[in-house]
Amino acid sequence: MSEEDILNPPRGMRDIVGVEAELHEYLADVFRETARRHGFKPIITPTVEYFKLFEMKSGEEIKRSMYVFQDKAGRTLALRPEVTASVVRAYLKEMRALPKPVRLYYVAQCFRYEEPQKARYREFWQGGLEVIGDPDINADASVAFAASSFLEAVGVKHYYVVGNVSTYRVLMDKMGVPGETQDLILHLIDKDRVGDALKVLGGVVTGGHVELFNKLLNSGLDEAPGILREFRLLGEGEQTTLEAELARTREFIDLLNQMGFHAVYEPRLVRGLAYYSGLIFEYKTSEGLTVSIGGGGRYDGLTRVYGGEYEYSTGLALGLDRIALLLSPEKAVPRRSLIVVSILEGVPLKAGYELVKRITSGGLAVIPYRARTVSKALGFANKQGADAVVILGRRELESGVVTVKDMHTGMQSTIEAGDTDALIKLLEKHGGRG
Amino acid sequence: MSEEDILNPPRGMRDIVGVEAELHEYLADVFRETARRHGFKPIITPTVEYFKLFEMKSGEEIKRSMYVFQDKAGRTLALRPEVTASVVRAYLKEMRALPKPVRLYYVAQCFRYEEPQKARYREFWQGGLEVIGDPDINADASVAFAASSFLEAVGVKHYYVVGNVSTYRVLMDKMGVPGETQDLILHLIDKDRVGDALKVLGGVVTGGHVELFNKLLNSGLDEAPGILREFRLLGEGEQTTLEAELARTREFIDLLNQMGFHAVYEPRLVRGLAYYSGLIFEYKTSEGLTVSIGGGGRYDGLTRVYGGEYEYSTGLALGLDRIALLLSPEKAVPRRSLIVVSILEGVPLKAGYELVKRITSGGLAVIPYRARTVSKALGFANKQGADAVVILGRRELESGVVTVKDMHTGMQSTIEAGDTDALIKLLEKHGGRG
Repeated sequence: MSEEDILNPPRGMRDIVGVEAELHEYLADVFRETARRHGFKPIITPTVEYFKLFEMKSGEEIKRSMYVFQDKAGRTLALRPEVTASVVRAYLKEMRALPKPVRLYYVAQCFRYEEPQKARYREFWQGGLEVIGDPDINADASVAFAASSFLEAVGVKHYYVVGNVSTYRVLMDKMGVPGETQDLILHLIDKDRVGDALKVLGGVVTGGHVELFNKLLNSGLDEAPGILREFRLLGEGEQTTLEAELARTREFIDLLNQMGFHAVYEPRLVRGLAYYSGLIFEYKTSEGLTVSIGGGGRYDGLTRVYGGEYEYSTGLALGLDRIALLLSPEKAVPRRSLIVVSILEGVPLKAGYELVKRITSGGLAVIPYRARTVSKALGFANKQGADAVVILGRRELESGVVTVKDMHTGMQSTIEAGDTDALIKLLEKHGGRG
Repeated sequence: MSEEDILNPPRGMRDIVGVEAELHEYLADVFRETARRHGFKPIITPTVEYFKLFEMKSGEEIKRSMYVFQDKAGRTLALRPEVTASVVRAYLKEMRALPKPVRLYYVAQCFRYEEPQKARYREFWQGGLEVIGDPDINADASVAFAASSFLEAVGVKHYYVVGNVSTYRVLMDKMGVPGETQDLILHLIDKDRVGDALKVLGGVVTGGHVELFNKLLNSGLDEAPGILREFRLLGEGEQTTLEAELARTREFIDLLNQMGFHAVYEPRLVRGLAYYSGLIFEYKTSEGLTVSIGGGGRYDGLTRVYGGEYEYSTGLALGLDRIALLLSPEKAVPRRSLIVVSILEGVPLKAGYELVKRITSGGLAVIPYRARTVSKALGFANKQGADAVVILGRRELESGVVTVKDMHTGMQSTIEAGDTDALIKLLEKHGGRG
């Protein structure tokens, strides 16, 4: 490996530095705080899981694009491609006895071995919300509301595209399409390859059924129940179930619109994960990105795949890297005043650090700097982009004062070193001018 | 894999859930906020790096205990065992032109394939600080001060054990001990196997030198300069350099003690990472854990290993999992009031969510719940451990009020739904009684 190579992160991965890193941290902070305010509790699952966990129910594409490897004891492990499977596993292991619904959030990096391209990294960050144990549409509304609150808080205009995968699943079951073929068909629809999907379907069912299926893929919520009735295969119970699913989809869309978010129905929305069972949705933005910035939906019964009781569940994940691409770091991240505490020659470091301690207590950012002269200190502060410099020289130390210089106006003042409140207030004023 | 296996995280890894997860998030939050206040900027490096990056300078033990694997293109990758190597790589790639010193922080999970035992997980979380481009002892003081501020903020009593690895490195260089043998000797000292270390040393140098080396390993800062003078191998320049290193070590210890932290010199402290070049230190606690809860030191010149210019650098990392073990989650994590907003039958969800929005704006945690009756809502709130319930029924909606019930006292009151401030104040009062 050449010297140049050693400075690069692995292909498709990134160093996030500078204002980009500040934006990333800000988004993660606001996501966590928003989740907590909406009654979600944190969960931290391993970055590495047994491959088997994801193999069981993640969907074709994700399975193909996982980082899979063996540990020294020969266990087959994988870097997580998403977090919901881990959350469900941890729920079954440790949280079955909790009062339902269990509301969980996470911020975690995930990995997919795909060709790197815009807004698609091999390591990417997701902020997720999950509600386990609640069949009510309120559970879906609650995760959506929290996610939209987050997006609004960070200033991302967004709308919802809503679908329901249960109609296609139930119909294909009744037509006798094997599970893996179903996954492939949904995967092709997800990739906007409806023609190919219908071709695969045509290989296992009659032409009339293919036509009806295609009609469903092109119909709104008003027409869908009528088209379902044309499928003679459906029993009355199934017909009722699917109509209820469509009604639920409509209720969700109406509710989002009433809440002031914009939501539209999209019959071709199926999502890439094989565990979705009914209502699904994606977050889109009309500015800057055509790919979705997040999505989610119902995964009722995923608990059963891992050997647990049937549980109703819903959740979503937002792509923090994609959201970051929509924002300007300088505008999005709240600015914090930066102060240099300049400890001049002859002043014990200890005295300088006492000052640092008091100024940081006010929430300002402080860099302690040991300088031989005031002009060196000012040069340093200038380079660091500081809003103000607090100068502590021998003269100041003896008189119990500090000299404060505003780096924007050049204004200088002397203030009692012991009066923390006044000092912080003065420094904040300097920062505010920045 | 059996059904039971599928519910377990990989061996040596964990799900962090419940109050443990809240504690973990709290520690990470306080670490980040403390770092920001002390003028550090975030950096996010990949979880996965080229194996080569760590192979070059991480130390014997870490190399042996890495998760190493090949990606689909045959690249040899590793899960990071620590973050400093990545930070230095990213610095060289992207930050060389920044004004120095560059002050960076991270919170990141790391991986070591070791036998799982108490306070040692295969995936563990580190909070780290790095200062690149500053030879002054103030840089070391500054990271130490920020770390101690964090530990004090979360309530962890700690003290410093301080050493300096440069004496041993320079002496072994002069005695002609090969680099890898040096690493092995320091590794053995680190593992408290001084006898074995001296045996290895005896294989390559004379008995007299082994004896002097051993004397250094057992001497305080007062005796060390005299012992160094007994090594005839040292030129005057080297003697001066090492004495300056010892003086620097003393200055650091004195400074920490003056600042009110407790610090002691330990000649046998060498640390497990091969890139340390001089002053080193560890964080210990007298309560609960014998292993260190963090450590750091000078890694001047590590930039050169990766082909860059020589840079002075210092830094540290704290083990957040170990720190969590020292704390009681219930006591350590600030409590947030939990409110259930109960949306009764006949009330549009939308009206309930407007209420949720207003209450979350006050920083309280809110779970929206759709209930058929008030008693169901109270039962739900009770199970969830809520401090108060806000009831929104048809009657309330029509009169523009909400009913608030304190879950601790049972006290009930009616309040204007539109007066957000009064509502939040009332709910906070209920939470405060918890």
